[in-house]
Amino acid sequence: MDDLNLPEDASRPVLAGLAPRTNGGRWPVRRFLGDEMTVRADLIAEGHERIAAELLVRHEDDERESIRPMALRHNDEYFASWTLDRLGTWFFRVRAWADPFATWRDQFARRVESKDPEVASELLVGAGFLKRSAVIAEGKDRKALLRYAEAIAAGDVAAALDETAVALAQAHDPRPAQIESETYAVHADPVLARFAAWYEFFPRSAPRKHGSGKSAAPHATLDDAAKLLPRIRELGFDVVYLPPVHPIGHTHRKGKDNAANAEPGDPGSPWAIGAEAGGHKAVHPDLGGLDAFDRFVAAARQCDLHVAIDIAFQASPDHPWVREHPDWFLHRPDGSIRYAENPPKKYQDVYPLDFFSKDREGLWNELKSVFEFWIERGVRVFRVDNPHTKPFAFWAWCLGALRKRRPDLVFLSEAFTRPKIMYELAKLGFNNSYTYFAWRNTKEELTGYCRELYETEVGEFFRPNFWPNTPDILQEYLVRGGRAAHVARLALAATLSSAYGVYGPPFEHVENARHPDREEYANNEKYEVRSWNWNDPDSLQPFMQQLNRIRRENPALQRMRNLRFHDTDNPELLAYSKRFGENRIVLVVNLDPRREQRGWLSLAPADLGLPEGERWIMRDLLGETCASWKGDVHYIRIDPQQTPVRIFRAEQAHSSPKSP
Amino acid sequence: MDDLNLPEDASRPVLAGLAPRTNGGRWPVRRFLGDEMTVRADLIAEGHERIAAELLVRHEDDERESIRPMALRHNDEYFASWTLDRLGTWFFRVRAWADPFATWRDQFARRVESKDPEVASELLVGAGFLKRSAVIAEGKDRKALLRYAEAIAAGDVAAALDETAVALAQAHDPRPAQIESETYAVHADPVLARFAAWYEFFPRSAPRKHGSGKSAAPHATLDDAAKLLPRIRELGFDVVYLPPVHPIGHTHRKGKDNAANAEPGDPGSPWAIGAEAGGHKAVHPDLGGLDAFDRFVAAARQCDLHVAIDIAFQASPDHPWVREHPDWFLHRPDGSIRYAENPPKKYQDVYPLDFFSKDREGLWNELKSVFEFWIERGVRVFRVDNPHTKPFAFWAWCLGALRKRRPDLVFLSEAFTRPKIMYELAKLGFNNSYTYFAWRNTKEELTGYCRELYETEVGEFFRPNFWPNTPDILQEYLVRGGRAAHVARLALAATLSSAYGVYGPPFEHVENARHPDREEYANNEKYEVRSWNWNDPDSLQPFMQQLNRIRRENPALQRMRNLRFHDTDNPELLAYSKRFGENRIVLVVNLDPRREQRGWLSLAPADLGLPEGERWIMRDLLGETCASWKGDVHYIRIDPQQTPVRIFRAEQAHSSPKSP
Repeated sequence: MDDLNLPEDASRPVLAGLAPRTNGGRWPVRRFLGDEMTVRADLIAEGHERIAAELLVRHEDDERESIRPMALRHNDEYFASWTLDRLGTWFFRVRAWADPFATWRDQFARRVESKDPEVASELLVGAGFLKRSAVIAEGKDRKALLRYAEAIAAGDVAAALDETAVALAQAHDPRPAQIESETYAVHADPVLARFAAWYEFFPRSAPRKHGSGKSAAPHATLDDAAKLLPRIRELGFDVVYLPPVHPIGHTHRKGKDNAANAEPGDPGSPWAIGAEAGGHKAVHPDLGGLDAFDRFVAAARQCDLHVAIDIAFQASPDHPWVREHPDWFLHRPDGSIRYAENPPKKYQDVYPLDFFSKDREGLWNELKSVFEFWIERGVRVFRVDNPHTKPFAFWAWCLGALRKRRPDLVFLSEAFTRPKIMYELAKLGFNNSYTYFAWRNTKEELTGYCRELYETEVGEFFRPNFWPNTPDILQEYLVRGGRAAHVARLALAATLSSAYGVYGPPFEHVENARHPDREEYANNEKYEVRSWNWNDPDSLQPFMQQLNRIRRENPALQRMRNLRFHDTDNPELLAYSKRFGENRIVLVVNLDPRREQRGWLSLAPADLGLPEGERWIMRDLLGETCASWKGDVHYIRIDPQQTPVRIFRAEQAHSSPKSP
Repeated sequence: MDDLNLPEDASRPVLAGLAPRTNGGRWPVRRFLGDEMTVRADLIAEGHERIAAELLVRHEDDERESIRPMALRHNDEYFASWTLDRLGTWFFRVRAWADPFATWRDQFARRVESKDPEVASELLVGAGFLKRSAVIAEGKDRKALLRYAEAIAAGDVAAALDETAVALAQAHDPRPAQIESETYAVHADPVLARFAAWYEFFPRSAPRKHGSGKSAAPHATLDDAAKLLPRIRELGFDVVYLPPVHPIGHTHRKGKDNAANAEPGDPGSPWAIGAEAGGHKAVHPDLGGLDAFDRFVAAARQCDLHVAIDIAFQASPDHPWVREHPDWFLHRPDGSIRYAENPPKKYQDVYPLDFFSKDREGLWNELKSVFEFWIERGVRVFRVDNPHTKPFAFWAWCLGALRKRRPDLVFLSEAFTRPKIMYELAKLGFNNSYTYFAWRNTKEELTGYCRELYETEVGEFFRPNFWPNTPDILQEYLVRGGRAAHVARLALAATLSSAYGVYGPPFEHVENARHPDREEYANNEKYEVRSWNWNDPDSLQPFMQQLNRIRRENPALQRMRNLRFHDTDNPELLAYSKRFGENRIVLVVNLDPRREQRGWLSLAPADLGLPEGERWIMRDLLGETCASWKGDVHYIRIDPQQTPVRIFRAEQAHSSPKSP
């Protein structure tokens, strides 16, 4: 005979599913401050047994869980929600139990209705449930339960159907067959990780004090750069992102366009960090040093701008770490320090760190203290360079520790690597990520990629930040498409994701001269100081300003996962909408920067949550004109030489006089 | 300073995903004997670190795991497979480790190619890897490793690139940073759970010995029924399913069409199990008793037919259990036994069991022994009545124990209940399930339902058995659609799933008189003996025979998850294909049983794995004609009055002379 080692002595619910989770619960799912967090539990039990369930929620700073009843909606799915009204990690779990009293009461009500002769006998069963609850109740609840039990046992049908009796019995249900899920987590991130427009520029290229061109090697300070902040704010940006501001190494310094040797006066790449003047906690003397940085941050705060700095954990051969902690680096058999290489490519100006060095503890703590140093100086936003070449375990530990103290931090991962690695970095704590957006140019590429980001499990943890360009990325589409391509890509970045950024100066001037061998800018500002026109009405600056204003005025554009694509019959016309409450934005983009494209757009009022069959208003937010639309298909014609993008706000037509 | 309690002292791979799993591993995934089982592990590591991975596999009867290397295909996904060549449960897990030697060797090869001056220094690094492996190697491997290490350290570049050296180093890799997944399971089920045509009939309605009509209450025996088996086999079926064959209670026996009171001579419902002659281990005396049952099973075996019996765990008031184990039943406060009810409905002829009775152990073991009793008599296939009204825990325990001894059992779950409950029963061990197929009649319903069953996680554990009818289900579509509807529904059942069944006699005679109140047959055979024509060329019997022959001859129809739908521009025309190797079946069904329907079918050669741009043969398997098709769209016209179904075999046109 088989052993009957039964765990079960009563009918227990089965938790057949729980959502949302990331990797089955290994990492928290991610939401934003102020979001409504909804948990779904799939709960079943054999037969017609009724189930009761509750959600237990606790913020990481709280000691006690709060309890929310879960409501059955359909298909055995139970839901409860709460508002993420504090930043940081929240824990939740589900508790469920069979509710034989509810099962009995359902049946009993039907018996009463059908005048079942069993009613009298069933009253005794009902009284039994109330007595069972009375055993664990106290005070007046206990007395009330016993009073009800007595009345019901004595034949009082109305008492058995009394809602108060039911509520009391359920509040004191001994729950002999309760199950509990494991505990899962959701992290509430700052809204800035969802809605932000980033502007990248090299502060050393800012217009110099007392005019430029005074010296052979012109180099602006952060005080010069701070003068640009009001203009950047005027253009509508939220974050200014600076490439590394630290002292730059001179050993093996790169020359113009990454030439192996620098000429005298070449400023070097800001990513070759560290020199006599200091390392990751110092500011380049030519930028004005730490004091200038502090003034820059203060000026940004005046303009309501966030400063994002670049964290690149690597060192030039002249970095103080090399002298003070040679054991933090990788060595050759002859004891010399290895520079970075990916044979046959060599990066002699950069030493990678050995994260598994014997003094791991010293190194990891030093690296974390780099963040802490800048946090102390008011920085909340970090763009992290190549995080995928450092251990996942380091980031999980470091970001976790930093965020525990300051949950308002934003970390943008610059991991242009394989998708599963990008996603792992997002899971472990990078709450913003660069993406493949720059290489997604066709309609099929854009829709497929956005669906992967928003409509699959990826949407539970990955927050894209769409960039049409960076100093390292000047994609063919921009090179060939000129101004129309720049306008289209900027609008796509700014509306397909609610977080976007642009390496501003060359982009707004439609500078599209490409390095002969690489997919990056010629005369790359990484290696030389450039000068730009910061107030150029013929540039894309006016369009940037308009686009950012539209983003600010329309909450639908401030969210990510509300993106919906709409069919058009022309592969060059991409159409999509975003809706938040009564705010509805519709975009149609001509992806062909050269030719006018025409076609039919399928867009029914129901797709926008507007009343079916009725006319509605489409307000053109770029042209400031209005049109009245009706029906499910609409003719669209876009000439890229005017503007390749149409941005509409769909509005309900209010009590307008009917046409005759 | 934050505690640096690092689990990591080296770069370890991260297991970002593992498939297939059911409910994150809570239940085994299910496959069939002979299937190739493929496991996918998503493995990543920081930087350019190479990963090695292996799959460890063990059958439940084995002591030791066997090891298969996993191969990287694309997108950081590693795969390994093995053949499920034994029935029962197999366990598998994944082991992975960083492979710095492979990483080094890649770089080294590139250094050699680019004549890097570092080659000499790198040889020392390579020799170090080989020495590291030599430490754990033994015998001649150890010697060879040391020999290679010496040569390489002495400057032998060719030795460092030697494949034998690489293989030796990897075979003896100390793997300082290895990870292991948890252990998951896959269950290999008998092929009969995937490919079978079931035929249900009431043996008491079989033609009686010495002619019928001799008595007022004609009642055939199992010996009479056994005479039908050659005919059922001739029709192409694999399983004969008998409603319960046990003695039928007389207390509160139901009359014709479920009338509250039986008339004298009414035989009663076979599901009111148990009388003086015995309970679940007895055979109704009027059916000839146990000996007749044994002869029936033997006769079926002769015909290569499986006998499926019905397991309904409930009792009539006259069942021996009621007398011997009153504690196994539910009681009212007055001590009387409760009959089944769902107020206001009452089933006075049936007592449900109390699975959580005090003598739970006695009851559960008795129920398991019911299966064992019939297994002993040669039954391998069980249709289980209403399993969802019994505890999940009971089934998990009972089916698990039975299958451990006999992994060739098939359990068909008759749980017409909510989807998540149906799915839970499949997860815990029912390897065949009734479905909602009977209520899925339109193109949208059929495609949506099949996609849910085959293309979502459900396909990992749920094996549908499609029935167009049962004694309890006569759906409106059959009632209204007459013969054409019956033909279409039979063909759909037999081809959308590779396991299907039919309650044969009324179906093949297109009996579609419905009970006035319920979605079931009038003059329901559950409550009375009927007589049928078993050899009726005007019935659907010839079509059944043809359909079952086509299923046997075409392996593509013997599989479930190979179903693919194809577009047609007519909502009444449903088109789909199944492919297995070179066997390709295409079906087009006119879902409108009344009118001819025409339309364009989108079907490109590539959809069938045929060479693009070339003609191919479409052999009509019902009409035995051939046509040559070309291109991507095809005109289809189906008149339901002829036959509502076209079944084609698509065949490559072999070296046929080209048309001029």
